[in-house]
Amino acid sequence: MAEFSFIDRYCFGLGSKHPDTILSVGDDAAIVSVPEGFELAISVDTMVEGTHFFKGLAPELLAHKILAVNLSDMAAMGARPKWATVAMCLPELDQEWFGAFSDTMNKVANQYGVQIIGGDTTQGPRVLSLTIMGLLPKGAAMTRSGAEAGDKLYCSGNIGDAALALTRLQGEQTLTDDVFDAVLSVLHTPTPQVALGQRLLGYASACLDLSDGLIGDSTHIAKLSDVSIEIDVEKLPLSDAYRRYLSQGGLARYAITGGDDYQLLFTANQEKEAALKAISKDLGVKITEIGRVVSRADKDVVLLEEGNPIDIEFKAYQHFT
Amino acid sequence: MAEFSFIDRYCFGLGSKHPDTILSVGDDAAIVSVPEGFELAISVDTMVEGTHFFKGLAPELLAHKILAVNLSDMAAMGARPKWATVAMCLPELDQEWFGAFSDTMNKVANQYGVQIIGGDTTQGPRVLSLTIMGLLPKGAAMTRSGAEAGDKLYCSGNIGDAALALTRLQGEQTLTDDVFDAVLSVLHTPTPQVALGQRLLGYASACLDLSDGLIGDSTHIAKLSDVSIEIDVEKLPLSDAYRRYLSQGGLARYAITGGDDYQLLFTANQEKEAALKAISKDLGVKITEIGRVVSRADKDVVLLEEGNPIDIEFKAYQHFT
Repeated sequence: MAEFSFIDRYCFGLGSKHPDTILSVGDDAAIVSVPEGFELAISVDTMVEGTHFFKGLAPELLAHKILAVNLSDMAAMGARPKWATVAMCLPELDQEWFGAFSDTMNKVANQYGVQIIGGDTTQGPRVLSLTIMGLLPKGAAMTRSGAEAGDKLYCSGNIGDAALALTRLQGEQTLTDDVFDAVLSVLHTPTPQVALGQRLLGYASACLDLSDGLIGDSTHIAKLSDVSIEIDVEKLPLSDAYRRYLSQGGLARYAITGGDDYQLLFTANQEKEAALKAISKDLGVKITEIGRVVSRADKDVVLLEEGNPIDIEFKAYQHFT
Repeated sequence: MAEFSFIDRYCFGLGSKHPDTILSVGDDAAIVSVPEGFELAISVDTMVEGTHFFKGLAPELLAHKILAVNLSDMAAMGARPKWATVAMCLPELDQEWFGAFSDTMNKVANQYGVQIIGGDTTQGPRVLSLTIMGLLPKGAAMTRSGAEAGDKLYCSGNIGDAALALTRLQGEQTLTDDVFDAVLSVLHTPTPQVALGQRLLGYASACLDLSDGLIGDSTHIAKLSDVSIEIDVEKLPLSDAYRRYLSQGGLARYAITGGDDYQLLFTANQEKEAALKAISKDLGVKITEIGRVVSRADKDVVLLEEGNPIDIEFKAYQHFT
């Protein structure tokens, strides 16, 4: 169907225009120039209808989210996002749907300085896959493996909202409308911490983005850094909406096990505390100390409530349930 | 399903190991270093079950093809392929299937010097998307827009075999088994002209890979270079199998309109003829002069038979029919 290749050629030149993009959409490949002194960070994330999003989700929300989850990976490395390619599989050519999708992708890509340099649209079940590329000063990347005993554990923003929203969407529990509306926007249009990620270079010893949930993601850092992590559950940063839900008899566990918040979870040497406060203030992004890194012990992650270990079903958010 | 993330983490570190891969699979992003004096070429291609391949296609063939079609894009730019990320959507976790797939991907990636630096496996309909990255000396890329009147038109290898194989698979016509077996391997396991692509840098004025078919792809060059292209149909390079098929009363048109051959189609100034012959001999890859570039005329592409214009339904291969 010629219309699909029309889309490839004319609709993927979206987002920012970078002088070091040598060739964008329309040839066999795009060409970019990585400036001297920088490395390139690359990540890919896929979203599948029925698995990662409900059938019928608005194209604007889908465009925002597929870009946001990938931007969040750049944030987690401390990279400055620059380029992306998008592979789309769509059941039919719905120009209105595609127009709304590409308008939002253009808007969000511009907002974060990303240029969409290539794409591929094919007919089939609705599956979106985005590959994002960003710049990192040579050797500066934050990985998951640099945490050391004595470091403190921090997270940005609030956590648990996305998982809470999902419980109502999945019919697991009711939520009052005011709570639901507030947490739903976190699930649908998460804000990747792109600016924070870059500012953390040189300060964080390990970093990742919270996509599998606090326990699952803390476990990644613990295993790869060969340490254990203690989390003080009473310190977890909750939104006003989440607190309202708690006051209505709700459960705290979505903040602990839920995923999809796309906040940054990172560790830093205690000496960096003042600098982190300054960064937080400067960016207007909340950073909360929620625990510490300790020497490798039996458990990867220990939850503490007022200093006492608590037992919680040790289960990270998993996409297939 | 934890098993799927297991696959992501442990099964995508396939192919060559490059010293300028700073970080491969297992973190939020991979990191690579682009050496000074080089640019990065990036391309993405997707294959969907039921659209690009038949349900039940062997995992070995699928792994070969998704890599080959992307390698072919690198060849078309003259880039040296180095890295790839793979996004896989699979209906179920079949370890045997995945083992066969990753073994072949490892083998083919090694063969072409590609390292698989990232991946994402999710549950859903079978869709594969691969993003490939390769190195190009700064400013050296072959694009589709450099053809000039007076240039000659060339293609590598043979054309039409893949389209011919498809006619039997789709029940459009019978083929004798000896013909079918020979052309089927071109459809299933095409050989991307990666070495040739790199050798053509500085010689070809425009280049692309034959994926949409000779007419469709010639049209791309004509439009982007603002020229017209004449093709001498009697010069088209056909395989022995295709010639056997012709001698059995077969049709020539699959060589003209068929796609999926993944040979290179390129233009070059007449002065480069001797150099092209040397490259062809050196690599053992057939290069055939099949036409010429002329000043922009009404038609993008004109087919000539013994010098006389012929009329043929002007229709490129399209994936959706």
